[in-house]
Amino acid sequence: MILSKNNKNLIGQGMFQIKQEAESYERLHNKKLLHFEIGDSYFNSPEEVKDECIKAIQNNKTHYVSSYGLFELREAIAKNHNVDINNIIICPANFGIFATLSVVCDRGDNINYPTPGFPTYKAVAKYLGLNLAKNDFKCSISCFPNNPDGKYVYNSEKGKINIYDMAYENIIYEDFYFDIEKLNLDNDIYIHSFSKTHSMSGFRLGYVIANEEVINKIALLIETTVSCFPEFIQYAGIKALEIKNYKLKELKERRNLMFNILKKYYKVQKPTGGLYLWCECNNDKTEFKKLLRKGIVVCPGKLFGDKYYIRFCFAKSTKDINQLKEKLK
Amino acid sequence: MILSKNNKNLIGQGMFQIKQEAESYERLHNKKLLHFEIGDSYFNSPEEVKDECIKAIQNNKTHYVSSYGLFELREAIAKNHNVDINNIIICPANFGIFATLSVVCDRGDNINYPTPGFPTYKAVAKYLGLNLAKNDFKCSISCFPNNPDGKYVYNSEKGKINIYDMAYENIIYEDFYFDIEKLNLDNDIYIHSFSKTHSMSGFRLGYVIANEEVINKIALLIETTVSCFPEFIQYAGIKALEIKNYKLKELKERRNLMFNILKKYYKVQKPTGGLYLWCECNNDKTEFKKLLRKGIVVCPGKLFGDKYYIRFCFAKSTKDINQLKEKLK
Repeated sequence: MILSKNNKNLIGQGMFQIKQEAESYERLHNKKLLHFEIGDSYFNSPEEVKDECIKAIQNNKTHYVSSYGLFELREAIAKNHNVDINNIIICPANFGIFATLSVVCDRGDNINYPTPGFPTYKAVAKYLGLNLAKNDFKCSISCFPNNPDGKYVYNSEKGKINIYDMAYENIIYEDFYFDIEKLNLDNDIYIHSFSKTHSMSGFRLGYVIANEEVINKIALLIETTVSCFPEFIQYAGIKALEIKNYKLKELKERRNLMFNILKKYYKVQKPTGGLYLWCECNNDKTEFKKLLRKGIVVCPGKLFGDKYYIRFCFAKSTKDINQLKEKLK
Repeated sequence: MILSKNNKNLIGQGMFQIKQEAESYERLHNKKLLHFEIGDSYFNSPEEVKDECIKAIQNNKTHYVSSYGLFELREAIAKNHNVDINNIIICPANFGIFATLSVVCDRGDNINYPTPGFPTYKAVAKYLGLNLAKNDFKCSISCFPNNPDGKYVYNSEKGKINIYDMAYENIIYEDFYFDIEKLNLDNDIYIHSFSKTHSMSGFRLGYVIANEEVINKIALLIETTVSCFPEFIQYAGIKALEIKNYKLKELKERRNLMFNILKKYYKVQKPTGGLYLWCECNNDKTEFKKLLRKGIVVCPGKLFGDKYYIRFCFAKSTKDINQLKEKLK
């Protein structure tokens, strides 16, 4: 079978490939590894959110829903952000990145995105045939706090199309400020995820705020690719917006705990937000293998665009963090 | 904001656009319409399937899962189809169509798909820049029973890439035969959906069977677009495979009931499978508007590629079907 030439432009998100391989290894050798590779909170989704999802299933909210998403969830988001319901569409945040870039750019267009940055930026750019350019770009992605380095990466330029990836916007431990009031939907696109802020990674739920033209085009792309997203999951989102349970105290404790361990082995800064410790090393591949031999799985920095780093997710159990301490000795 | 030129190639699935507009109308006028537009079973998802999903949520299966899908669900499917687990990936069937065409074809390639046929074929082809060709194509899509006309549309050719959209394969009321043993994964790709067979449209769950190279590329496309699909939903799939509750008796009753009503007004054949009555008319737009004035929502045939038809979904409550009878008088 001769596949598409464009396949060479499919690179995906390396974290998932590492997770897949690590889990295969665990099954094959019946051995548990310590997982720090994926940005998945150790904390379970809030009970109230789970209950709302369960109630929706029991109430048979198990049918097709509008490709724009559940009306009631869009309504709640519109109220929260003080925008019109027609400026909102429900989708996983990762799909939001794929969809906005697809709707905004054509093959050959230049875009600017954070480097180091979330691997999906590069993966989508490559798949859609877009070029990374730090100047003279059609649109840019900003992210704060940025994954993986926790920095405030602001790439917006006046008159350009500005995408704000706000997946971690509520995971802030020290002073930080982003004023959503300043969003100008003539040029700005805002993407939010429930995954990190509400420990809901497995729900695959988020939303995009943009002007109506962009939203309508994303709806068509949703219909083209997945028809719509699951109905009952979207009821959980309404509850999540209400409870705002970000686990900041627990996450901050873990950040501090793991920072104090890792700083003995790596040059690393304590991030003011996000879920990651971004640790300098000589070579990410060598470091990855060295850690794997100790039963520790991390992300090589190259996945984010810098091979002189490795990334640890610190949203883990204190038991796992203590085991990490022992294994590193 | 100047959007992508490729946006003009986003057409989506018209059924969702009709559903969205009809629901807006209902909210605005506080009035209920009779919905026959979307292929969504009136029946609720099986209780055992819902329970399994609820149990998974309670057990905190609410985290990231492999982009290939839940190992245990892939294992169950592999056993059912007598293929290797590496030949299976979990995704909504609609994503399966988008992904296989994306992985197999490049811009400008020719593909053959059923006309009339499921709107996603055309939507994906247009978005990816593929041309419909009845001869000299790189790959073809076959569908039996075909949506919307219930026919056996077999477009496969030896030596070409053959995609089998088997969303309705278990919704068969009379004699029918498709031998999965004949699948040759050198050339064949098989796509299954839980939506129709198990009344699970809102779960957005299905799978693709293909050779490992195709599966690995689809995994990368999943990572690029959505990261992965929801974890707890995939547990429901394991239970669905066990119970095989297709509601064929109830669906057949409704097919017969609605066929006997509609044959008085339209030239229509009784389909041997699927969920639709495909009714001849002079002009689908005029007919659509005429029915809408009576409070009845259907799908214009143009969405499927033939404007001399309208499509009714018959998987509806007997109450709705009886109301249809009254309103048509």
